[in-house]
Amino acid sequence: MRIDGALLQRRLDELYAIGAEPDGGTYRGLYSTAWAAGGERVQRWMRDAGLKTHRDAVGNIWGRAEGDGKSIVTGSHIDTVRRGGRLDGAFGICAGITAVESLLSTKGKPRRTLEVVAICEEEGSRFATNFWGSRAIAGSIGKDETDRITDPAGVTIGRAMRERGLDPTRIATAARDDIDTFIELHIEQGAVLEASRTPVAVVSAIVGTAHLEVTVSGRPDHAGTTPMDQRLDALAGAAAMVQAVESIARSLGKPAVATVGKLDVEPDQINVVPGKVVFTADLRHADLGGRRALEERIRSLCGTISQERRLGLAIRTLQEKPPVAMHAEVRALLARAAREYGVQAAEMVSGAGHDAQILAVRCRVGMLFVPSIGGRSHCPEEATAPEHLELGTNILAKALELLAY
Amino acid sequence: MRIDGALLQRRLDELYAIGAEPDGGTYRGLYSTAWAAGGERVQRWMRDAGLKTHRDAVGNIWGRAEGDGKSIVTGSHIDTVRRGGRLDGAFGICAGITAVESLLSTKGKPRRTLEVVAICEEEGSRFATNFWGSRAIAGSIGKDETDRITDPAGVTIGRAMRERGLDPTRIATAARDDIDTFIELHIEQGAVLEASRTPVAVVSAIVGTAHLEVTVSGRPDHAGTTPMDQRLDALAGAAAMVQAVESIARSLGKPAVATVGKLDVEPDQINVVPGKVVFTADLRHADLGGRRALEERIRSLCGTISQERRLGLAIRTLQEKPPVAMHAEVRALLARAAREYGVQAAEMVSGAGHDAQILAVRCRVGMLFVPSIGGRSHCPEEATAPEHLELGTNILAKALELLAY
Repeated sequence: MRIDGALLQRRLDELYAIGAEPDGGTYRGLYSTAWAAGGERVQRWMRDAGLKTHRDAVGNIWGRAEGDGKSIVTGSHIDTVRRGGRLDGAFGICAGITAVESLLSTKGKPRRTLEVVAICEEEGSRFATNFWGSRAIAGSIGKDETDRITDPAGVTIGRAMRERGLDPTRIATAARDDIDTFIELHIEQGAVLEASRTPVAVVSAIVGTAHLEVTVSGRPDHAGTTPMDQRLDALAGAAAMVQAVESIARSLGKPAVATVGKLDVEPDQINVVPGKVVFTADLRHADLGGRRALEERIRSLCGTISQERRLGLAIRTLQEKPPVAMHAEVRALLARAAREYGVQAAEMVSGAGHDAQILAVRCRVGMLFVPSIGGRSHCPEEATAPEHLELGTNILAKALELLAY
Repeated sequence: MRIDGALLQRRLDELYAIGAEPDGGTYRGLYSTAWAAGGERVQRWMRDAGLKTHRDAVGNIWGRAEGDGKSIVTGSHIDTVRRGGRLDGAFGICAGITAVESLLSTKGKPRRTLEVVAICEEEGSRFATNFWGSRAIAGSIGKDETDRITDPAGVTIGRAMRERGLDPTRIATAARDDIDTFIELHIEQGAVLEASRTPVAVVSAIVGTAHLEVTVSGRPDHAGTTPMDQRLDALAGAAAMVQAVESIARSLGKPAVATVGKLDVEPDQINVVPGKVVFTADLRHADLGGRRALEERIRSLCGTISQERRLGLAIRTLQEKPPVAMHAEVRALLARAAREYGVQAAEMVSGAGHDAQILAVRCRVGMLFVPSIGGRSHCPEEATAPEHLELGTNILAKALELLAY
C-alpha cells in the first residue's frame, strides 16, 4: 500500500492558500475567518476519505472510522503563526487524512477505531495562550481561561468562540479518555536531519523549556565624561552574560540549547552609558536534569558577572515546561514502520513544543519528523522535499495499519 | 574682588524655573516659549549689570561693555535637553553676567571690550542639529540648513526662527570676526574632579568623537530546533563585539572612552535566534591619533569576530568630529587666575562637546570646569556644591580682569 502523493501535495497547496497573506506566507489565527475556512476544507476531506466527522466544543475537527476499543489517533494543528509556512501543523493533518484514506480504501474497516484530528490551536500566535486544542482534549483548560485570555485587540477567547458558534461553557465536553495512542507527523523545523542526510526521525522526547527574564541594572552616565573605570555599564555586563549563555549551552553539549532572543537597552541613546538592560534566555534540554543544570550554571555565571561589575541582577522565570518522553512502545512501532519502508529512522529530540507533549498525560504518544530544507520554519520558505513528505506519510500509514488493523 | 554668590544662585534658580517640567527638570528647546522667556530674563540681567544688549540673527543674546580692540567674551548656551538640570549651559551664562557685573561695579569701564553671550543652542535636543548658536557666530551654518533641518514635529528651523521674529536670510550677519578670546565656564558632567577632590579644572582639549553604527547579520532560527553548532546568532556575535569595544578602550587607557549606547535586535522574540543586530559605538579621545587607534582596533576586532562566527558585518560612520585643543595662552591664564584664588587647578580633557570647540576656529578659546556631584548631568539631579559654583565664577572674573583690564 502506498499513499497518493499527488493528493497529499494538492491538499497542502489548498490549505496553504487559505489565509494567504499579501507579503507571502499564510495566517490562520484561532477562530479567524481563515481558520474557519481551513477547518471546513479539512472536514470535507475527512468525509471524502470515508470518515464520520464532528467538531468538538473548542473547534477541534475529528474524523472517525469506527472499530473496537480505545482509538488510534493521528493529526496535528490547523492554526499557523503570522507569515507561517505550508507545512507546520498542516502536514500532520493532510498526511493523516491521506494515510487513513489509503488504509480504508485498500484494507477496509479497521479492527480498532481510527481517527484523524485537526487540532484547533497550538502556536499561541493570536491569543496569549497555546496548546488550546490539545489542552481541551487533555481536559486541562482552566475554568477562568475563556474570560481571562485575550488577543492583542482585547477580544477574549470566550467571545471569539461564541462568534464561531462554539459554547465556552461546554469546553469540558471536549476532553477524551478513550484514546489509546496519538501519533503526530511533523516537519523537523531544524536542520539536523538535513545535515545527516536522514529522511525521517522518530522523536525520543520533547525538550523541557525554561524562559528566564534577566534584568541587569547599572547607572546611566555621559558617554564622554565618564572614564571607563567609573562606569556601571549594564550593556557591557549583559553582553558578558549573553556570551555566558551561549558558551554554557555549548559546553553542556547536545541536546542543550540556550538562546538570548530579546534584549532591550535603557535609555538606548548613542551617547549615554546604558543604565539598564532586560534580556530573555530560552533554555531547553531533553531531560529535566540537563535543563536544570543549564539553568543553574547560567544563573551562577550571571551572578558572578554582576558581582564583578557591581551591577544589579534580577532573574525571573517567565515559563517552565518539563521535558516529555515519547512512549517507548510507540517509538519502537514507528521505527519498525520505517524499516518496512526500507528506511533506518534516526532518533532525535524535538527542540520545539508539540501537541503530543500535552496529550502524553492521557495516552501513549509518538512523533515522526521529516527534514526541513535549510531548517527553515515559521516563514514562507518552510519546505520539505516531496519525497520526504510522501515517505513520512507512508510510514505513518504503516504505523496506523500496525496499530489498527 | 569677589562675586555675589547669593545673586549667582538666585539667577540659577530663576532660570531653572523657566521651562520647568511637571516630572522634574527643565526644558528650553530652541525657539520654544520657555527658550524665549529664558532669553528675556537673561537680557534683563545683562542690562541690570550695566551691559548694552542685542539679539543677533539666530537669537544669541549679547551683553557688551565697550572698550578697545577685539572682544573678550564669556558665556555658554541657554537651551537644555529634555528634563535637563539646573547648571548645564545656564551656569556659564549666570556666572558670566555675575562676574562681569562685579568687575564693572568694582573696576569700572574695561580697557578692552568685554562681552557676555547667551548662546541660543548647543544641545541638539529639539532640531536635528547642534551648536546652532556657536556655528552662527563662527559663520559656518550652511545655506540650506534652515529649510532642511526639522524638529520631530516636522517644523523647519527656518520656520521656528520666523515664529520668534528672527529672519533666516540674515543668519550670516551673526558671524563675528572681532572676538579675541572666548572663555566658557561649565560643569564637568562627569565625576573625575569629585573623585580627585579638585574644585576646578582647566580644560586642555575637547575630545574628538566618532559615532559608528555596526550592523551584524546572522540568520534567524528556531531557538529549540537549531543546535548550537548550526547557528548564526547575530546577538551572540554582537555581544562579543560590545565586550571588545569596552576592553579596547580600557586597554588604550585614559582619556580613551568607548560606549555602546544603543542596541536593537531582530526579530527580538524570546524563542528565535537573533538574525540581525544593529548597535552604535561612541568613541572619544583627546588626540586624533588616539581616537583613530581606538576606531581601528574596534573595526579590526569586530571584523575578526564576524569572520570567526560567519556573520555579516557592516560599519558605517554616522558622525566624526576632530579633537579641539584649548589655546595654550588661555589655559595658562586660567591656571594663573585659579592660583590667585589659592587653588591649584587640575588639567583635564573634556569628554563632552562644548561651544568652545566651534568658536576655536575664530578666536582663542579656553574652558574651566567645576565638579559635578556624582557626575550627574542632563537630569534633574545635576548639581554642584555652592562653594564650587562661586569659586569657578570668581576664577572666571579674575581671568576676565587679567584680559580686559
